[in-house]
Amino acid sequence: MRYSVLRALRNHTGDISGEVISGELGISRVAVWKQVQELRKQGYVIAASSRGYRLESAPDALLPGEFPGWESLVRHFESVESTMGVARTLARSGAEAGTLVLAEQQSSGRGRLDRSWMSPPGGIYMTLVTRPSIAPVLAPRISLMASVAVAEAIHTLLGLPAQVKWPNDVLIEDRKVCGILAEMEAESDAVRYVNIGIGLNANTPVGELQQGAVSLAEASGAPVDRVLLVRSIVEGIFARIEHLEEPSILDEWRRWAVTLGREVSIISAGAPVRGVAMDISSMGTLMLRQPNGEIREIVAGDCRHEAQ
Amino acid sequence: MRYSVLRALRNHTGDISGEVISGELGISRVAVWKQVQELRKQGYVIAASSRGYRLESAPDALLPGEFPGWESLVRHFESVESTMGVARTLARSGAEAGTLVLAEQQSSGRGRLDRSWMSPPGGIYMTLVTRPSIAPVLAPRISLMASVAVAEAIHTLLGLPAQVKWPNDVLIEDRKVCGILAEMEAESDAVRYVNIGIGLNANTPVGELQQGAVSLAEASGAPVDRVLLVRSIVEGIFARIEHLEEPSILDEWRRWAVTLGREVSIISAGAPVRGVAMDISSMGTLMLRQPNGEIREIVAGDCRHEAQ
Repeated sequence: MRYSVLRALRNHTGDISGEVISGELGISRVAVWKQVQELRKQGYVIAASSRGYRLESAPDALLPGEFPGWESLVRHFESVESTMGVARTLARSGAEAGTLVLAEQQSSGRGRLDRSWMSPPGGIYMTLVTRPSIAPVLAPRISLMASVAVAEAIHTLLGLPAQVKWPNDVLIEDRKVCGILAEMEAESDAVRYVNIGIGLNANTPVGELQQGAVSLAEASGAPVDRVLLVRSIVEGIFARIEHLEEPSILDEWRRWAVTLGREVSIISAGAPVRGVAMDISSMGTLMLRQPNGEIREIVAGDCRHEAQ
Repeated sequence: MRYSVLRALRNHTGDISGEVISGELGISRVAVWKQVQELRKQGYVIAASSRGYRLESAPDALLPGEFPGWESLVRHFESVESTMGVARTLARSGAEAGTLVLAEQQSSGRGRLDRSWMSPPGGIYMTLVTRPSIAPVLAPRISLMASVAVAEAIHTLLGLPAQVKWPNDVLIEDRKVCGILAEMEAESDAVRYVNIGIGLNANTPVGELQQGAVSLAEASGAPVDRVLLVRSIVEGIFARIEHLEEPSILDEWRRWAVTLGREVSIISAGAPVRGVAMDISSMGTLMLRQPNGEIREIVAGDCRHEAQ
């Protein structure tokens, strides 16, 4: 109901009387007023005058009300330990596909390999619950696909030269702007859930960025609209998630990739492996041409781009 | 403590006095007597005389006491809905690798693709919790490996010509004796758990078998020792689970495979695909040569062996 009132306010550029809202939504004027109070508590600035209500501004926060038609699936937190943890609990207990966990900051944000992920205010910290109808063997394609969705959103909304790096980062001019995590539960023939975690340096203060990282605000010279980015990323993911069986997702990744053709070092448990990144396989593993000419399939590890 | 008493009884072929057991274990003779009572309740036949106790027989049940040194990880149920469900709850809450759920029967046993799995008394219904240190992309190898462990146990213990069928069945002379399920939770670079579910027609009454299935008792002409089978299967799995990154597991599967070189039909969501099963890929997918000569990679589906 709160979000219906918000939508009514948004649909009117000028003032809208409590009576009109009450008529549109079939609720009392007192109920309208109560919801206006709730929205103000969330940070929405709503002017009230004899002519009615007017939405003056929305808070700079990834609130459910910023995702019209979809508010009930959005869980927003000022701060959580990690959006992955919240989403795991939700997904295990049956949360529906499209459930989106958003946080303004994380106290124990996680990156790959259980590394911590700096999560100060200004960034985007999100985990999206998905339940694609795919064979589990295709699941590795999901983080490839999600990184394409992020790169595309950055490029489309901000015109920045975003590229994807194997296995699951997004870079702008070789500096990391986004990391992606996927967490899944699957049985032999079906995926039960895949939670896609995205940590994006949106308006993260430059002083809080890790070395070699960049924020969208820094790259574009101005603060960016985090809400539009989240919407665009989620739309990009859902546009692709039922098409993971098609090879087109691999071709898309190749088009956005900065890794292919580069001299890279792969760091994993054993000794580093160096070579030229030739391609990705249909399962998303990296095909590396080693100095002796042999092709080696890399299933996991950190990928360092060597100087060109 | 109960199992220490059981082990003491097992270590003596003749009678062993309560006093000796009490001395060996550092517990009172009353405590020994109490544990003997508990073991009798589980179905162990323990004679008591003036010379002491003697283990006369163990029940025909997959009790923790049948897995010496490892009893604390074994959960035995007369009947559960499904061992997969019990194991999932345990694994999600951190049960250690090696936790083994065994049931004499299941009321809602599940096979692949959410099919029901007939689970009358006499069969083996088990789920083993594992936590291998592998990249999630290699997880599909786990059910291949488990089917090899089952085929090997059957061959070694009973001398029966067991073979593995893609993706995860074990056959004896083209009749199904075992189905395998795997269920996993993983993040981008690490597997959190893989539960391996095994349904094996051990001493299942012939009248309770599905069409085209066979039991080990039927194939070997006598009831089989279910405890030895479970031990052997679990040992076979743990001998291999930290070597999944090595290609040897694929070679092993190829050696036990009945599918390769056969004319098969793959039935999945779309139209059936027919061809000759040429090989498995490093990710466990099936490479099929279609009638037009093209090789098609099959990621999931039912595999029907056509008449030769």
